[in-house]
Amino acid sequence: MDASSLSRIGLAGLAVMGQNLALNIAEKGFPISVYNRTASKVDETLSRAQSEGPFSLTGQYSPRDFVLSIQRPRSIIILVKAGNPVDQTISALTEFMEPGDTIIDGGNEWYQNTERRIQQVADKGILYLGMGVSGGEEGARNGPSLMPGGSFEAYKNIESILKSVAAQVDDGPCVTYIGEGGSGNFVKMVHNGIEYGDMQLISEAYDVLKNVGGLSNSELAEIFGEWNRGELESFLVEITSDIFKVKDSLVDGDLVDKILDKTGMKGTGKWTVQQAAELSVAAPTIAASLDCRYLSGLKEERESAAEILKEAGLEEEVGSVKSGVDKKRLIDDVRKALYASKICSYAQGMNLLRAKSVEKGWDLNFGELARIWKGGCIIRAVFLDRIKKAYQRNPNLASLVVDPEFAREMVQRQAAWRRVVGLAISAGISTPGMCASLAYFDTYRRARLPANLVQAQRDLFGAHTYERTDRPGAFHTEWTKLARKS
Amino acid sequence: MDASSLSRIGLAGLAVMGQNLALNIAEKGFPISVYNRTASKVDETLSRAQSEGPFSLTGQYSPRDFVLSIQRPRSIIILVKAGNPVDQTISALTEFMEPGDTIIDGGNEWYQNTERRIQQVADKGILYLGMGVSGGEEGARNGPSLMPGGSFEAYKNIESILKSVAAQVDDGPCVTYIGEGGSGNFVKMVHNGIEYGDMQLISEAYDVLKNVGGLSNSELAEIFGEWNRGELESFLVEITSDIFKVKDSLVDGDLVDKILDKTGMKGTGKWTVQQAAELSVAAPTIAASLDCRYLSGLKEERESAAEILKEAGLEEEVGSVKSGVDKKRLIDDVRKALYASKICSYAQGMNLLRAKSVEKGWDLNFGELARIWKGGCIIRAVFLDRIKKAYQRNPNLASLVVDPEFAREMVQRQAAWRRVVGLAISAGISTPGMCASLAYFDTYRRARLPANLVQAQRDLFGAHTYERTDRPGAFHTEWTKLARKS
Repeated sequence: MDASSLSRIGLAGLAVMGQNLALNIAEKGFPISVYNRTASKVDETLSRAQSEGPFSLTGQYSPRDFVLSIQRPRSIIILVKAGNPVDQTISALTEFMEPGDTIIDGGNEWYQNTERRIQQVADKGILYLGMGVSGGEEGARNGPSLMPGGSFEAYKNIESILKSVAAQVDDGPCVTYIGEGGSGNFVKMVHNGIEYGDMQLISEAYDVLKNVGGLSNSELAEIFGEWNRGELESFLVEITSDIFKVKDSLVDGDLVDKILDKTGMKGTGKWTVQQAAELSVAAPTIAASLDCRYLSGLKEERESAAEILKEAGLEEEVGSVKSGVDKKRLIDDVRKALYASKICSYAQGMNLLRAKSVEKGWDLNFGELARIWKGGCIIRAVFLDRIKKAYQRNPNLASLVVDPEFAREMVQRQAAWRRVVGLAISAGISTPGMCASLAYFDTYRRARLPANLVQAQRDLFGAHTYERTDRPGAFHTEWTKLARKS
Repeated sequence: MDASSLSRIGLAGLAVMGQNLALNIAEKGFPISVYNRTASKVDETLSRAQSEGPFSLTGQYSPRDFVLSIQRPRSIIILVKAGNPVDQTISALTEFMEPGDTIIDGGNEWYQNTERRIQQVADKGILYLGMGVSGGEEGARNGPSLMPGGSFEAYKNIESILKSVAAQVDDGPCVTYIGEGGSGNFVKMVHNGIEYGDMQLISEAYDVLKNVGGLSNSELAEIFGEWNRGELESFLVEITSDIFKVKDSLVDGDLVDKILDKTGMKGTGKWTVQQAAELSVAAPTIAASLDCRYLSGLKEERESAAEILKEAGLEEEVGSVKSGVDKKRLIDDVRKALYASKICSYAQGMNLLRAKSVEKGWDLNFGELARIWKGGCIIRAVFLDRIKKAYQRNPNLASLVVDPEFAREMVQRQAAWRRVVGLAISAGISTPGMCASLAYFDTYRRARLPANLVQAQRDLFGAHTYERTDRPGAFHTEWTKLARKS
């Protein structure tokens, strides 16, 4: 093969995400080779390249032919299931790769696996990137948000490609070099945790508006549509409005009402919560969203619990609460509660990233992360531009809630926020995510917490000692003796 | 040494916990050998055995002499810091131990380390127990709660000793064989997670009574004392009452007011939260208690946040809320809220144990676990007898909140519970643990959750498919196309 016929880049793993990303790259004018173990997937991609293009896309049917069809230094994106399939693909491809070539894993991989593989392929002189790709199938095809971490040299090799294929927003393409090691995967993981939080908070707004406010699906479609033209403008709010508009094709009525209330999940939300605990970072809103997915899965247990507690005399107070509700004010309050809760959730996610960045020396740029999430990905929102600016104002911001702009916004919304959560609680709805955000806010903003009592207890039974507010040092007291003497 | 002069058991690691447990064993009539790398600790223990006894306790100054001073099959308890020190101690001792002998690790060890060590010593024919020991220093000396897991044969070898030294309650000693592998450590870990939850909930009750109800420390001492004579009777409530009685010895006033509101922690709480996520079990109350410890540690950030948000115009509503409060009713409400929140926290802990028991095939007996926690340990409470009975009534209970007795209790307390949490939220206190328990209860007891919306969102952007309420199968819808067509 002469050099001119070689591809600029390769992509292995042609499920829908892989096909779409390959077509996106080809469409932007970068000749690409594609490969999949199942030959029919290669043919499928070739035929899409014809019908959606024609694009310069070459199909290959063996790892060797695939690797050799790419110009050096080779950059090969793999999009296969996280875990073992990634190892198998790397092993199949690196056999034919040469020093200076690069593997780019675009899956939702656990960051430590990426760090292990970086070491592994380094023995052969091969470079490595773990690249978070957000935006689902549609984003992969038309412009995802990309979070590449690992070898900077490898990043530079494909920077022009990534910048072309990524989503484009007012301040540039939604891609930036994240940092070394597994940072790209870690940032994508936290992005997903934040996404869980956003979806949970939106579902709680729906719950309150529907079950306390008595809003119909068409009213909900309208309200979410309206919200999408204000401070809450975002992909998730936009699609929520759409969802309420869809009629059921099987029976009379709206489709959303017929969907089973059991939510699936993948590993990234769980990892986010576990990493938060590992790094001593409070992330209760993200954790609440995960818990709600777990509890949603216990559909039969919940149905049985509803029955048992009803028999035990549980009086639903929803009826009486409902009758006193001012619908217009409730809608306005819920919007504010959703926005304030969201700020707290993002504050948790960003602080988790900061803690990890310090631990690993990644030197993450939080403003840039917010910027590349402004387009392409599932959490894209105008709101992220405010976060970007907050970190531009102060790169060492302790928390989003103390940024002057956000602080003002929180303060303006807190009364409404407290009303919504309080109302939901009295109505038996108990918005777990909004509650968690509010409790987080109220804990973080209090100069004095009741933790003094906990520390006294620990000193009493475990001699763990305590500090004092009025002088330095560690103190221990014989509490029981002194208490019973008096 | 002739057989009659050999000790019945040995204990290595003579920090206060180790000394106390050795003296407890000796006091119950079991001749014991003790050993510590630092000789002075051995002498200290010997002299305590004289002054507190005299007891039959032999000090040894080398691993060899120590091991050989114990009758076969040897049982040796080690009480050293979890992690590497345990491995080092095992390695030093097993050099002189023989097949059929047993190592019993009494530390707060990660259960997988115990499972690794079980395999490791098995090569030498040595048996192993990972034994949770709760009750702090005082419990070790006078009767702890013991959670031994691992080799059943090893347990039988020392069962009579453990039953003698454990705390004694109405239905027997606070010890039982937990199960195989690292089950003893795992159960102790969850015990500690529950302990975190209890301490957090008590500190929130204190917070509300003090900052909303305006109660003084002497009133608080009285109220907690009163609560300790009712449904909340427990070690932690008892010592809380004591804590409020202690005067400061350095300046005028009560000591509790001078304690810095920063709470320390060890690894078990974190592990509990991480394992809950791993096993898809919601444990939000325990997680909230951990988060509050993390946030308590950010004292300077909190002080600064309080200032910034005050400047941004945060209006404390505490004053106006306070003025409307009926103190007597608030106290009664808080007691009910604390009790109901506690039930949810224990439900989370028990369900985490159940999930792990299923995963590992441990066949845990939840009623027995509740029973052995009735005495000796930090969470000891009359309430645990109710839990024991709930599991005796139904060993397959899905959750404590659906046990008929607890369900009735929850229903009777829910109005008060909602009032307290709602009041706290409007007063800017936001009780994170009570909120988390209430949100957990309200999520678990609802036959229909808003998770249908989340599932619709996931299907829209990720083609994850959804199930329907009215027919089987997995469905996918082109949401956006249909919504925009209409």
